[in-house]
Amino acid sequence: MTVDFWFEFASPYSYPAAMRIERLATQRKLAVRWHAFLLGPIFKAQGWQDSPFNQIPAKGRYMWRDMERLCSHYQLPFQRPSRFPCNSRLATRVACWNSGAPWLPEYVRAIYQANFSQDLNIADPEVIAACLGQAGQVAGPILEQADSMESKAKLHQLNQQVVRQGIFGAPFILAGQEPFWGQDRLEQALDYAQACSPPVLKQANGQLNEVR
Amino acid sequence: MTVDFWFEFASPYSYPAAMRIERLATQRKLAVRWHAFLLGPIFKAQGWQDSPFNQIPAKGRYMWRDMERLCSHYQLPFQRPSRFPCNSRLATRVACWNSGAPWLPEYVRAIYQANFSQDLNIADPEVIAACLGQAGQVAGPILEQADSMESKAKLHQLNQQVVRQGIFGAPFILAGQEPFWGQDRLEQALDYAQACSPPVLKQANGQLNEVR
Repeated sequence: MTVDFWFEFASPYSYPAAMRIERLATQRKLAVRWHAFLLGPIFKAQGWQDSPFNQIPAKGRYMWRDMERLCSHYQLPFQRPSRFPCNSRLATRVACWNSGAPWLPEYVRAIYQANFSQDLNIADPEVIAACLGQAGQVAGPILEQADSMESKAKLHQLNQQVVRQGIFGAPFILAGQEPFWGQDRLEQALDYAQACSPPVLKQANGQLNEVR
Repeated sequence: MTVDFWFEFASPYSYPAAMRIERLATQRKLAVRWHAFLLGPIFKAQGWQDSPFNQIPAKGRYMWRDMERLCSHYQLPFQRPSRFPCNSRLATRVACWNSGAPWLPEYVRAIYQANFSQDLNIADPEVIAACLGQAGQVAGPILEQADSMESKAKLHQLNQQVVRQGIFGAPFILAGQEPFWGQDRLEQALDYAQACSPPVLKQANGQLNEVR
């Protein structure tokens, strides 16, 4: 089975989820479709002009403490970004246009590390270019494409699909139609998907034959 | 060590936390102080006129599905309440005035079961009286006291303390100064408190002597 992993580059809790999902999915023989989207327009439609972590200071203070604990638990480097939320539009358009590219997960992880462990400004095309480089890509043509009207339109359409699918926060995992919100639900979502996957059939000759 | 467990009777995720915390704390030799408070005034100060689960319909739909899954996982009976959020003021004043009473946990669990597994209206004094009865108490004098000016003032003061302590949602657990928000953090909070507790000393005669 393939699970759909929806994330926002500016979302703190999406960081540990993005760093962990591939290994956890592989252990369960699941594939992952990676989808970057923008939370900003969704929050605006809910009447918020800023991240709830900024609008409600006590919630923000708690979240950063919780992130420190979580990342320490998962042994992920963490540094609280000096800008929050960062402007993730360009980085997201790169991911959206190149959806399905084999290098996408590597790029996604590089962007998250830049934002949440190196405190780099991921709105900066040079930072994005370096992340594309880490994923083995030549940045120039990709960044040029990401600035095109087609690329902006594609992300706009994707964000409308996000709303239609009932996604209201990040990270969000869809295992078929079953929704799971939050880094805290990662294992549960993948366990669910694994339980839904067709069983492995043992053939008469003793070889394993997986039904896809 | 004693942990502080803060909950709101109308809060769905507080229900499984309230049903589970005593057993999990006992396993770790921890005591629990139970504190009911009101989320309404806190949400209003954040600019919300209703529960976020009503204000953002997609979030509400998700939460009810997640509650079904959670309660099924914990083998807790669950029925989506026909009123949400219920008016929890009277039930909360009863808990606030009787804070520290040995029967309080039993009363709290009875109220949660009435709200989230029996779909009873926990604003109704008769429902609260029945819950007090389940906790072995004669309801009349307790309910009369809960309607007094002193009782209303005490809850008002408690809710101000909640804000000062940085509590912005429910359930919320404080292990000393360390904050944990959400039913999903229950085990983590109690593990943390256990790790902070003074060690059990083994005396020369082989008997255990706990340092409190």
